[in-house]
Amino acid sequence: MAQPFRIVFILYPRLTQLDFTGPYEVLARVPGVETVIASKDGGALKTEMGLTFADLIKLADVDRADMIMIPGGPGQTDAMLDPDFMAEVKRLGESAKYLTSVCTGSLILAAAGLLAGKRAGSHWAYRELLSNFGAVPDDARVVRDGNVITGGGVTAGIDIALTIAAELAGDDVAKMIQLAIEYAPAPPFNSGRPEIAEEKTVAAVKQLFSGFAQQRREAIERMVGGA
Amino acid sequence: MAQPFRIVFILYPRLTQLDFTGPYEVLARVPGVETVIASKDGGALKTEMGLTFADLIKLADVDRADMIMIPGGPGQTDAMLDPDFMAEVKRLGESAKYLTSVCTGSLILAAAGLLAGKRAGSHWAYRELLSNFGAVPDDARVVRDGNVITGGGVTAGIDIALTIAAELAGDDVAKMIQLAIEYAPAPPFNSGRPEIAEEKTVAAVKQLFSGFAQQRREAIERMVGGA
Repeated sequence: MAQPFRIVFILYPRLTQLDFTGPYEVLARVPGVETVIASKDGGALKTEMGLTFADLIKLADVDRADMIMIPGGPGQTDAMLDPDFMAEVKRLGESAKYLTSVCTGSLILAAAGLLAGKRAGSHWAYRELLSNFGAVPDDARVVRDGNVITGGGVTAGIDIALTIAAELAGDDVAKMIQLAIEYAPAPPFNSGRPEIAEEKTVAAVKQLFSGFAQQRREAIERMVGGA
Repeated sequence: MAQPFRIVFILYPRLTQLDFTGPYEVLARVPGVETVIASKDGGALKTEMGLTFADLIKLADVDRADMIMIPGGPGQTDAMLDPDFMAEVKRLGESAKYLTSVCTGSLILAAAGLLAGKRAGSHWAYRELLSNFGAVPDDARVVRDGNVITGGGVTAGIDIALTIAAELAGDDVAKMIQLAIEYAPAPPFNSGRPEIAEEKTVAAVKQLFSGFAQQRREAIERMVGGA
């Protein structure tokens, strides 16, 4: 490609860092891709577990994106409620060729009005909330609907990104990246989705997430209130 | 646990960020674990593809570790050649209960003299180099030999970390973490190991890595020279 294909990762405080770092590792390896890592304020931000990212670009300083990618995480609720942040998501999203997200990042795309009538994925524990914004929840790990590529929670970002790599640069390039990052996963347990995990595991994780779930529901009710 | 179990992630410039961020996402979720993210100089460092981590602790300021975990990446060669960095790895490693790594991080453990006679994994493209330091290369995705837990390249870190989570907190906790991060991988291609990838893919990635491979070989020859 003559001009690089610009992927803008849109970050915010208290995101789940692997939602971003998984796809970033894959997409930064695609020839012809320029990655821009941006947040509302630029500079540094702390992720959910404490790791700090720095040298972020200010969203307002990003003139355009060929693709936006939005990760999820506990901070997603506050981000979605921040009109300045959402205005930047909308601005970059409306002119981007592709809209992509990982995990609850899809709720930000949806809240920005970018997923109306579109099938989209999200983290299994929050997926149904998409329908509040007129999107159609889909339980696939990678969900494609036209120019919208979303998917499941956290680690799904790697599969989403390999799908995007194939779309942008062809299957052979995606296969090379998969081999370079030795992506032949071998989970020691069979517990990665609620449909296959033990009942007690599902109950324990739902309990762990109950505070976040309530926050998200309440925030969305306020946003679409009266609907 | 009364006192937290301290996992020290030992970082260095130009590491492959997913080697660290994959396991960090898992291990930071283990109850009773304290994560410390450290580098020789502390502060900020740039990873292989440009992402910056900040707020790092200075290795000299870390008094002890229950576990050290070392990621791999192109910067591994320079790190291994830095006597001040290696002195810190040795100091923390010698008193740690567990020595762990992802990808070419095992070459740092090995170069520090911590893997003599131990089976260890590494990225498939560099695994054989372990034998220069008296370690025994093992091609498993997760390799355990006593208190040493290592494994394959980049994404293997997630499987390594779930194995460690189970060791530290039991299978039920590891399964909860797997479900929380929706780790039910579904790679779009079957190209994650040289044994299963297409021949042309293997050749292309080997070509891509040839510079790094030569640097590593030459550096190791200088280190063990005369042997």
